[in-house]
Amino acid sequence: MAFSCGENLRVQIFGQSHAAAIGVCVEGIPAGKRVDTQALAAFLSRRAPGRNAWSTARREPDAPEILSGLSDGVTCGAPLTVVFRNVDTRSGDYEKLRTVPRPGHADYAAQLKFLGAQDVRGGGAFSGRMTAPLCAAGGICLQLLAELGVTVGAHALEIAGVRDAPFDPVTADAETLRAPGLADFPVLDASAGEAMREAIAAAGEKGDSVGGVVECAAVGLPAGLGNALFGGLESRIANIVFGVPAVKGLEFGAGFGAARLRGSENNDPYRMEGGAVRAETNNAGGVLGGISTGMPLVFRAAFKPTPSIALPQRSVDLGAGADAELRVEGRHDPCIVPRAVPVVEAAAAIALYDAYLDRKKEL
Amino acid sequence: MAFSCGENLRVQIFGQSHAAAIGVCVEGIPAGKRVDTQALAAFLSRRAPGRNAWSTARREPDAPEILSGLSDGVTCGAPLTVVFRNVDTRSGDYEKLRTVPRPGHADYAAQLKFLGAQDVRGGGAFSGRMTAPLCAAGGICLQLLAELGVTVGAHALEIAGVRDAPFDPVTADAETLRAPGLADFPVLDASAGEAMREAIAAAGEKGDSVGGVVECAAVGLPAGLGNALFGGLESRIANIVFGVPAVKGLEFGAGFGAARLRGSENNDPYRMEGGAVRAETNNAGGVLGGISTGMPLVFRAAFKPTPSIALPQRSVDLGAGADAELRVEGRHDPCIVPRAVPVVEAAAAIALYDAYLDRKKEL
Amino acid sequence: MAFSCGENLRVQIFGQSHAAAIGVCVEGIPAGKRVDTQALAAFLSRRAPGRNAWSTARREPDAPEILSGLSDGVTCGAPLTVVFRNVDTRSGDYEKLRTVPRPGHADYAAQLKFLGAQDVRGGGAFSGRMTAPLCAAGGICLQLLAELGVTVGAHALEIAGVRDAPFDPVTADAETLRAPGLADFPVLDASAGEAMREAIAAAGEKGDSVGGVVECAAVGLPAGLGNALFGGLESRIANIVFGVPAVKGLEFGAGFGAARLRGSENNDPYRMEGGAVRAETNNAGGVLGGISTGMPLVFRAAFKPTPSIALPQRSVDLGAGADAELRVEGRHDPCIVPRAVPVVEAAAAIALYDAYLDRKKEL
Amino acid sequence: MAFSCGENLRVQIFGQSHAAAIGVCVEGIPAGKRVDTQALAAFLSRRAPGRNAWSTARREPDAPEILSGLSDGVTCGAPLTVVFRNVDTRSGDYEKLRTVPRPGHADYAAQLKFLGAQDVRGGGAFSGRMTAPLCAAGGICLQLLAELGVTVGAHALEIAGVRDAPFDPVTADAETLRAPGLADFPVLDASAGEAMREAIAAAGEKGDSVGGVVECAAVGLPAGLGNALFGGLESRIANIVFGVPAVKGLEFGAGFGAARLRGSENNDPYRMEGGAVRAETNNAGGVLGGISTGMPLVFRAAFKPTPSIALPQRSVDLGAGADAELRVEGRHDPCIVPRAVPVVEAAAAIALYDAYLDRKKEL
Repeated sequence: MAFSCGENLRVQIFGQSHAAAIGVCVEGIPAGKRVDTQALAAFLSRRAPGRNAWSTARREPDAPEILSGLSDGVTCGAPLTVVFRNVDTRSGDYEKLRTVPRPGHADYAAQLKFLGAQDVRGGGAFSGRMTAPLCAAGGICLQLLAELGVTVGAHALEIAGVRDAPFDPVTADAETLRAPGLADFPVLDASAGEAMREAIAAAGEKGDSVGGVVECAAVGLPAGLGNALFGGLESRIANIVFGVPAVKGLEFGAGFGAARLRGSENNDPYRMEGGAVRAETNNAGGVLGGISTGMPLVFRAAFKPTPSIALPQRSVDLGAGADAELRVEGRHDPCIVPRAVPVVEAAAAIALYDAYLDRKKEL
Repeated sequence: MAFSCGENLRVQIFGQSHAAAIGVCVEGIPAGKRVDTQALAAFLSRRAPGRNAWSTARREPDAPEILSGLSDGVTCGAPLTVVFRNVDTRSGDYEKLRTVPRPGHADYAAQLKFLGAQDVRGGGAFSGRMTAPLCAAGGICLQLLAELGVTVGAHALEIAGVRDAPFDPVTADAETLRAPGLADFPVLDASAGEAMREAIAAAGEKGDSVGGVVECAAVGLPAGLGNALFGGLESRIANIVFGVPAVKGLEFGAGFGAARLRGSENNDPYRMEGGAVRAETNNAGGVLGGISTGMPLVFRAAFKPTPSIALPQRSVDLGAGADAELRVEGRHDPCIVPRAVPVVEAAAAIALYDAYLDRKKEL
Repeated sequence: MAFSCGENLRVQIFGQSHAAAIGVCVEGIPAGKRVDTQALAAFLSRRAPGRNAWSTARREPDAPEILSGLSDGVTCGAPLTVVFRNVDTRSGDYEKLRTVPRPGHADYAAQLKFLGAQDVRGGGAFSGRMTAPLCAAGGICLQLLAELGVTVGAHALEIAGVRDAPFDPVTADAETLRAPGLADFPVLDASAGEAMREAIAAAGEKGDSVGGVVECAAVGLPAGLGNALFGGLESRIANIVFGVPAVKGLEFGAGFGAARLRGSENNDPYRMEGGAVRAETNNAGGVLGGISTGMPLVFRAAFKPTPSIALPQRSVDLGAGADAELRVEGRHDPCIVPRAVPVVEAAAAIALYDAYLDRKKEL
Repeated sequence: MAFSCGENLRVQIFGQSHAAAIGVCVEGIPAGKRVDTQALAAFLSRRAPGRNAWSTARREPDAPEILSGLSDGVTCGAPLTVVFRNVDTRSGDYEKLRTVPRPGHADYAAQLKFLGAQDVRGGGAFSGRMTAPLCAAGGICLQLLAELGVTVGAHALEIAGVRDAPFDPVTADAETLRAPGLADFPVLDASAGEAMREAIAAAGEKGDSVGGVVECAAVGLPAGLGNALFGGLESRIANIVFGVPAVKGLEFGAGFGAARLRGSENNDPYRMEGGAVRAETNNAGGVLGGISTGMPLVFRAAFKPTPSIALPQRSVDLGAGADAELRVEGRHDPCIVPRAVPVVEAAAAIALYDAYLDRKKEL
């Protein structure tokens, strides 16, 4: 199913950007877990648009409403459903996109798939707005993981070629992982963040956009999560992360860099340290054979530049069967990477909590 | 489920390297499709070990036996099961790996997950040998796709830093995609292949190993396959490709490179060409919004170097609770990338045929 | 997943009786299908309470709100979500049920499963109210099936031992199947309906309740739906029908009666009739080997009497660890069978449309 | 998927009666569980044909071969695959069934579904022989359940109208449940068994067949297994039991009889008994709200008479488009109920162990 992910925890997303609502239904959360709705709202606000200079001016209340699944603030075993009402929907902006598809967007592909029946308003079900319910589900998983001592954090590792300091794959700790989420701009090195903001603003002023890389890590993760083959943490995370609009690449640990290492360089040696097994390096990114090793889990997701740009673009008029020039109206983020940071955390959290539930069945 | 993938087509893999057999059960293939078992055997032989200088000396007949699913050579609607009997299993080589885990392998993670109950012989269910049943399922999907006019091909884009000519993401055709599979070494540029072989041999002589990148493409793919979010072709392919042992990265189209482009550079402009819509570039890798655009599908998977190396490595003795030096015995490929080329094709084929079946439900 | 059913069509139900809302998210409906919301509301009203003498006085607007999945009244390919806001929720009535479980209800079993975290208000997720979203999903499937020429209808075959005329398993036609749904009381024989109403009223006056049997049939069903083993229509329908609260039995065709027939009596002979193959009898209930034969599909579901009765009952006080007498307060249907009739139609429609989507993949 | 069942435990069946093999792949069994292969073989022998006067003379070795999933006799976490080689396959007997379908069999329905591509030899994938792999999976689940203190047993409650003593739904114990499986004929009351055998023999002598009812119960089952709606034990068991060829009805506890009871009669009163909650009656059959109550689980499945009978039958010749008389050749059980007894146990065991794994995720 396209709009759902997870195996023990089923996360079913629904909605279109300009339908009555978007939302998510999460089945499989054990009963008796307190959900901190304020913390959830705070997490969601990290993804929300309209907060500052680098994000779209479209303002959405984006207040999550929990329709079901709680009793006195505690999960009751029934599916937990969160909806976000859509407001500020200016449908008139979008109608012509049915005939003149925007380059870099799903418009043309969706037209071919749905034969014109797709909801084109605001990107419909292909809108980046669909990541709000993903974050609602992921935000709850983050709370469930925190209860287990697991911290998941992400940051903008790179935007427009400007790089932040990376997480240290061996020594990363919970505090470091939380830092970008608490900062005004989601980076470890504030000066890199400043340079990123400038690059974003510069692109935006030219009517253009930029992309970047989000790095995500998890610490405190118990060893033994995941499985061989398609049950591996990499497969599970990939399935969700590649479901995030604009993601075009994903790598774990040394990733593509590992392809240029020798085995003797890439293999992470083990050693005993205070009675515990530790790896001296973490090129594996905390996953071997699909299973968590106890080392920090580290991965990076590449985001393409926002396809909605103000600059004129070459497209086609499907009605006229002729070339056409297109100017995308409306207000759009010149870079979605800062807002994508919590989305990647959410995606990872869903995959990891899902794998944790697998683990419970086994033991 | 860890050992299964696909949604309309369920591919259930089973076995361990040194159990009686490994195999795969594929449910969901429409009835009435002729399976060319000779072509399947030929495809499987591309993955088989022991054929030449650059692969392990372990010889396996690896003759697939089709246990069910055919009637007079034609699919009958019942699950198609293929098994490979395991022979040449020298269990004695492996027993100590339960206490001294090999760096870069699943040994330690599996030990923590299965508390010692895992099958350690030959890597058990974590063995690269498990890709044989994946190739059996994928090889059949390749035949089913060919019937639809879809060609899937892959090549070793890079090994040990040596690069082959890439597929052209706009003009790639079926003949080009098939070429590496027909060559002695799976590359487009034979001279690059020669240099790769030398690099592999050089690493092997030192008891070391090298990694690389496999590039895969599909042409003839109808537009409209895939879906939003987790039903996207990227998510579906990623779920399977990351299930292949040793894959640590995956990117589509411009991939990580897209993160450094501007929107005006990365968006692929459309134009009418002989009455058809074409994109002038293909940074999207043939997928927008998770849906095939009709342009070639292009992705690259990064493989880490073979973790089994003859060089001494630092590990731990879990029994003694002390550091230990390890020498991996046995014969191992100093580079698995050439043999991984058909595995990546198989993975892509399963995902694409599965998405094609989705499509049939919709129309 | 407990709250979801279907394979190609995933029907995810959510909510609790006294949460903010109950609802359903249906993924997998092909795009481009017009949904008749008025017809849907009319179908839902057949299940709604408070309409007449034989149903609970609790009044619910039960107006479905479609949150997503439509664009201009037509399915757009994104999941279709319908919610029903909960009003008239008197939580005070229910709190003591956490300690003194009602016989015949889920209270005690849920207490053991959820360790007290379950939502006890109004039966929570175990409430018969959860059949409203099931009917929303099923009502849409009924429309999709109607477009294919399939008619599904049900009636109260038996209530309190009073029997209606059965559907004729060989000659049943669409008009007959529709008749009970159009009648004031869902039977074929109005006089039987009158006797049922009297029996229900008599039981209600004594503070007691009665059960019954719903018979459901589908005509116009193409042959070839379903599959061997667990993909059989019987398995698929059973999975959903047994998910309806209070169902304790299900049989197809001759059902339990077939167990007393000889093979020569039970086998339905074939004959050619106007160039078409027909069965002379239909003990199979339209399903052989799990696959529709083209004959009417016929099944019956047994409903136990409403467990909520006004008469005093023996229970236990889990807090005090002692026997206790219980009187269930509130207003309850003395018989749920009339309102269950459309629920059974809905359950069948989901299973059949799901099987129809399977069929599309195969051809 | 038609050939698979289970959610946490995925049971994938494959094969056709006259293919090289039939078998089953079970994924999701926790690692570290010892499988008693002798006990498994003994369980399978209860289903095997050719053992005595009341079953088909076709002899099959039906020796299960475990291809994977064990290491030193203990589950290793990889899927457990069991195959049964098909021998004694006389394909010549069956070919004409493609044109003259046998009444009561899947022949005609399968022909319409698979358009002639189905494997008709010996019933193909619709053969009762497919219950052997179901029993292999179920037999292992029975062992896993026994380790938890759960006993599942079944008996022929009724054959040809002759009734055995029923299980007592309140006092049934493990010893009683095991008794029919140890007896020469699977009943509690040997004299009833004798009368059943006579009835079977009498029908067989006339070239006819008889059906019956299997009653199954489980004791020692922890309370709290199952869930609301489709996750209920009834739904889960029904999904599997209706997948067994020839099953046409299923009821839990008082079942269809409950439809004629009053609420005051059907509700099972609770009382404290030695500090534990007990129900005084068990009309619920041990399941309320889909969840086990701790009382014995009791259900009954109706089997139609064997459709293969020696008597001449009326059918059609699909090639000639004309009526035809058919005589089914070969040797067939005049009653499959005795051999179906372990099959029903197996079906129940799979559903229950699957629900138990659900439970582990929750706690």
